[in-house]
Amino acid sequence: MPAKVKAALLGASGYTGADLLRLGVLHPGLDFVALTANTHAGKPMSSVFPHLSSAKLPDLVTNEAVEWTDVDVVFCGLPHGASQKIIVEILEASPKTRIIDMSADYRLRDVETYAKWYGAPHVSPEWQKKAAYGLTEHNRDAIRTAPIIACPGCYPTAVLLALLPLVGAGAISTEDMIIDAKSGITGAGRGLKQNTLFAEAGESLSPYSIGSHRHGPEIEQEIGKAAGAEVVVNFTPHLIPMSRGELITAHVRLGSARNAAELRDILAAAYADEPFIRIAGRSEMPATGHVRGSNHALINVFDDRIPGRAIVVGAIDNLVKGSAGQAIQNFNVAFGFAETTALEALPLFP
Amino acid sequence: MPAKVKAALLGASGYTGADLLRLGVLHPGLDFVALTANTHAGKPMSSVFPHLSSAKLPDLVTNEAVEWTDVDVVFCGLPHGASQKIIVEILEASPKTRIIDMSADYRLRDVETYAKWYGAPHVSPEWQKKAAYGLTEHNRDAIRTAPIIACPGCYPTAVLLALLPLVGAGAISTEDMIIDAKSGITGAGRGLKQNTLFAEAGESLSPYSIGSHRHGPEIEQEIGKAAGAEVVVNFTPHLIPMSRGELITAHVRLGSARNAAELRDILAAAYADEPFIRIAGRSEMPATGHVRGSNHALINVFDDRIPGRAIVVGAIDNLVKGSAGQAIQNFNVAFGFAETTALEALPLFP
Amino acid sequence: MPAKVKAALLGASGYTGADLLRLGVLHPGLDFVALTANTHAGKPMSSVFPHLSSAKLPDLVTNEAVEWTDVDVVFCGLPHGASQKIIVEILEASPKTRIIDMSADYRLRDVETYAKWYGAPHVSPEWQKKAAYGLTEHNRDAIRTAPIIACPGCYPTAVLLALLPLVGAGAISTEDMIIDAKSGITGAGRGLKQNTLFAEAGESLSPYSIGSHRHGPEIEQEIGKAAGAEVVVNFTPHLIPMSRGELITAHVRLGSARNAAELRDILAAAYADEPFIRIAGRSEMPATGHVRGSNHALINVFDDRIPGRAIVVGAIDNLVKGSAGQAIQNFNVAFGFAETTALEALPLFP
Amino acid sequence: MPAKVKAALLGASGYTGADLLRLGVLHPGLDFVALTANTHAGKPMSSVFPHLSSAKLPDLVTNEAVEWTDVDVVFCGLPHGASQKIIVEILEASPKTRIIDMSADYRLRDVETYAKWYGAPHVSPEWQKKAAYGLTEHNRDAIRTAPIIACPGCYPTAVLLALLPLVGAGAISTEDMIIDAKSGITGAGRGLKQNTLFAEAGESLSPYSIGSHRHGPEIEQEIGKAAGAEVVVNFTPHLIPMSRGELITAHVRLGSARNAAELRDILAAAYADEPFIRIAGRSEMPATGHVRGSNHALINVFDDRIPGRAIVVGAIDNLVKGSAGQAIQNFNVAFGFAETTALEALPLFP
Repeated sequence: MPAKVKAALLGASGYTGADLLRLGVLHPGLDFVALTANTHAGKPMSSVFPHLSSAKLPDLVTNEAVEWTDVDVVFCGLPHGASQKIIVEILEASPKTRIIDMSADYRLRDVETYAKWYGAPHVSPEWQKKAAYGLTEHNRDAIRTAPIIACPGCYPTAVLLALLPLVGAGAISTEDMIIDAKSGITGAGRGLKQNTLFAEAGESLSPYSIGSHRHGPEIEQEIGKAAGAEVVVNFTPHLIPMSRGELITAHVRLGSARNAAELRDILAAAYADEPFIRIAGRSEMPATGHVRGSNHALINVFDDRIPGRAIVVGAIDNLVKGSAGQAIQNFNVAFGFAETTALEALPLFP
Repeated sequence: MPAKVKAALLGASGYTGADLLRLGVLHPGLDFVALTANTHAGKPMSSVFPHLSSAKLPDLVTNEAVEWTDVDVVFCGLPHGASQKIIVEILEASPKTRIIDMSADYRLRDVETYAKWYGAPHVSPEWQKKAAYGLTEHNRDAIRTAPIIACPGCYPTAVLLALLPLVGAGAISTEDMIIDAKSGITGAGRGLKQNTLFAEAGESLSPYSIGSHRHGPEIEQEIGKAAGAEVVVNFTPHLIPMSRGELITAHVRLGSARNAAELRDILAAAYADEPFIRIAGRSEMPATGHVRGSNHALINVFDDRIPGRAIVVGAIDNLVKGSAGQAIQNFNVAFGFAETTALEALPLFP
Repeated sequence: MPAKVKAALLGASGYTGADLLRLGVLHPGLDFVALTANTHAGKPMSSVFPHLSSAKLPDLVTNEAVEWTDVDVVFCGLPHGASQKIIVEILEASPKTRIIDMSADYRLRDVETYAKWYGAPHVSPEWQKKAAYGLTEHNRDAIRTAPIIACPGCYPTAVLLALLPLVGAGAISTEDMIIDAKSGITGAGRGLKQNTLFAEAGESLSPYSIGSHRHGPEIEQEIGKAAGAEVVVNFTPHLIPMSRGELITAHVRLGSARNAAELRDILAAAYADEPFIRIAGRSEMPATGHVRGSNHALINVFDDRIPGRAIVVGAIDNLVKGSAGQAIQNFNVAFGFAETTALEALPLFP
Repeated sequence: MPAKVKAALLGASGYTGADLLRLGVLHPGLDFVALTANTHAGKPMSSVFPHLSSAKLPDLVTNEAVEWTDVDVVFCGLPHGASQKIIVEILEASPKTRIIDMSADYRLRDVETYAKWYGAPHVSPEWQKKAAYGLTEHNRDAIRTAPIIACPGCYPTAVLLALLPLVGAGAISTEDMIIDAKSGITGAGRGLKQNTLFAEAGESLSPYSIGSHRHGPEIEQEIGKAAGAEVVVNFTPHLIPMSRGELITAHVRLGSARNAAELRDILAAAYADEPFIRIAGRSEMPATGHVRGSNHALINVFDDRIPGRAIVVGAIDNLVKGSAGQAIQNFNVAFGFAETTALEALPLFP
């Protein structure tokens, strides 16, 4: 086993940061030496997240208080924009430090696409080029060595795990992809917004950001890369009255495959050796409750009654496989640990 | 105002029956003279539904105990199969009695389609022909006089209100209709099933009955009728951790319309005088919480990033506009009451 | 029927204000001529509460924009502190205008108690003396004529309806009253607070404000008044993962009564003619779901296994009987309408 | 580390059984060789609990199919009544096999109390005498060697952890103990009951089994033992709309202690070295969300405004510390493993 890796977590007061700690403190090779949250600097983690009280963790500090050269890996849970700035600073101050970024800043290859969707030019297009897209199962080689690992968005994780092997095989078409997505409310973060209040979000259901969600171009980038062509998808997310969990229902046209069974076979073969991906039983309906709290992804394919189409369904926990869990999985790949280290926990059901 | 209409409610121990009473007991022209629930016969309604305790209601009896000739209207909340049998009996015993059926038995025009999807031949195809499809806003003339009013399924109500004017105008295509639907758990009824337990359904989300839900052919029948052609749709329902509410996200191809704005205009014109249908503000996301407990439907249309497509979203309360409320609305039409009678209540939010 | 009463609602952007409108717009004798919400002035109500879109309502204005002499009644849904100031202004500008205050400002008789619990001296102790405590069932005479009707807090409403007849009869002791209370999350209002986010409050349960909740002294005041003695109670509220509903479990010592059955009899007699209060069946467990959305209160009494004690349970909807519904009930009393006007709706279950 | 212990789990299709497997499969010293569920015999666990699919587990069999002499430890998750019968059979067939019973059958020392509360005489009062009460933190010596470890009920676990040190020290009185308890819905098991349907239990709150819950005498037995006297308590449970979690609010009279701070000090001292028990920060409100999925218990004490009383609050996850987690903790004690083995996971929040 490698020696303990010294880690900093930036943005430890958000849900993603908290879930990274929940999992990471049990990692035998990780040592969290700095946790930052600028508005809470000086406080113990237990005051921000009481459920982490039993873990031995350093108190929160500002980003400025961290000595980057003391840190082997930085997990970045800051918002986009802020992330790219500090990541450049870190890499300049301490070139050997590796970055596992859970923000959106290094996901998009194309600087114009980034500028258009995120409303400002990227501050470090050169670093953006060196970042590896952190969809672990599909990009291990790059992840192993990249200075920056750009962990995918939660929705792209669910979508790409379900669709990439099918697109890559030409088994489905990239025309007319309808991705109807549903997420629990932690997807909107811990910030104070009226629409994430219990009384507003509870016992209700609605779509949001139709046609304007930033995970759309990210999905298109990776689907397009696998297809070798430009792709435009319909990505329609909905807010669901539950805390965790994300389900994507991709309504797709068949390509070379003839039916759902063939698509299942392709997925089963692609993920046969993957510890975290499970192709559900033939008639089993993927449920987010069956992956809650775990790094698992659950996928299935169903025939559409419209000839020539199929329905691909994927379920993940948005905070784990969709963020913090995948970050740790990428850490394991990058630092030579067994990939399941600290991610062994089974889903919490019910 | 017409004199009081004597009503029987069959199947008063289910959620649909209860909601019909919740609304109906405040109707100035309705007098519930018989409530049936064979397994609870002899009990007061308050023992089956304590929230109705303050209403003066007759005790539950068996179906057999009702004297049909004393009854002007029968609201039928029995399961399919059982409904068609008793409805034939009622109409033979008391030809002037009118039936408002909330079951599925008289919705499908085609006896072969019925037999295929419901697993048994229909017992009274001749009555099936005389039934009016009870989607109030689109079938008032037939509803006014038909002996049987077959109230639509909850999903078809949401789908057809959103799509019929668009299909009828040729504004959208009937090819490639992807209807991704989401329902609260009352949609599964009050029967005891493992998947509707709080601990199973709570904090989770999954599709169900993909390609096999019986509301699929019902939607196809009515869309097909409006289009004057056979139609096959993708209808993919999901179970959502909330009690009431239904949202449909219809991913459609444009026909003669060029964009979402034109579709909104068509819907706005079609429903301009309808008291229960609201076209949401341009960027307003329909939410089931905004119609909860009411007979309202809320519809909006959004541009798809895929050229030539649009996204139509509709929200209803599945137990009200999707069942008991629409039944009362049909009763009002059939018996000459103002259509909003007993349906004036605004949504309960939060 | 009296002529239409012209009403203003102050603080229309909160849950209490919204629920007052939900009910009030169906009142045949109420005409809302002004709605205020200072931070939303100029907007239509539908933008603040889309579920009210179908109601014809004036746009929101500032408090300053209302001409008080044009208004017969003011429903005040502002926070405490702000309420007392504007109420004095209104009464000075338009002495005939009557105030139905849903804030806490005129509930406490004792100015020192007010100052201690609310952190500032009352600005108008003289008006405070003239206010009637608006627990309708127990104070109709004063409500009929008072210039200010101070609607009780939600918890005091539930507690006092359950206990006042028992205290008044000496049937229970005022020593050692343990009031363990549970409320849905709307009780905390629509303001943005971390602990009322869906992800924080959902799937969790905790007490709050133990020993420091401002409804404690309000309960003590009214219990003490009924008992003719100073009383100190244990009032321990808990936050429950649901939007609406409040349940109080009062663990009390018997006084002159010998058991729960005798206490039930006293309550049944006290409320025999009350349209909104129901004493549950002998073994029926009051559930907030059975009063949701209605002005009902549901009460029951159970024997304690500890000799000499009993357990009194009461359930209300905190936004209706606990606030907006009781405000309308008080309006009906004050302006001579039948007391159930606009409050006839049965509970929304499920 | 000891060699792998061969384990059977009886009643693997319930929530308690599932949670025992969720945790137990990660235990380096446990090998599940038999899982029983009579109505599901022959099926793989994944068909009963899909979230456990990734674990390598034997298929379900009947109880009769297990060869007890091959098994070192039996975890029993059967209902009471059934448990005592099969446990006697096992111990007769294989005297060296140890039993960790999660049912209620071996918790009560007094056979008459058992017969009265459970409706039938105990079949093996002699074994009942040899069973150790499995409240780990308070009974390690007996647990280490007893043939049967009777894991406490979920409510007694929460209550006794919070109160035993205080009773034992005489710091609180055993007179007039009011234990107002709240549980998530998994507490009612996976059986099909109307009141645990999502639509019935969601968005609602009610007490249940007032004065008749079987955990009452269990609490009294252990409090009485610590006090050296017979005790009768008020135990009033409530059903809360969440899946997991249990909170007890004990309203108690002070004994020798003068205030909450002294009670906190006693608890802090008693549990100073306990890995799973945390005394919350002085004003921190214990929340079930902060222990969800973990074996943690969270306790705090507050002053009551009634002089001479205090309020003790405890939170656990009813399926973990309240059942399966404590069973594994007892296994660790009984078989010489480090007590936290397989129980290291931090709470899943949100």
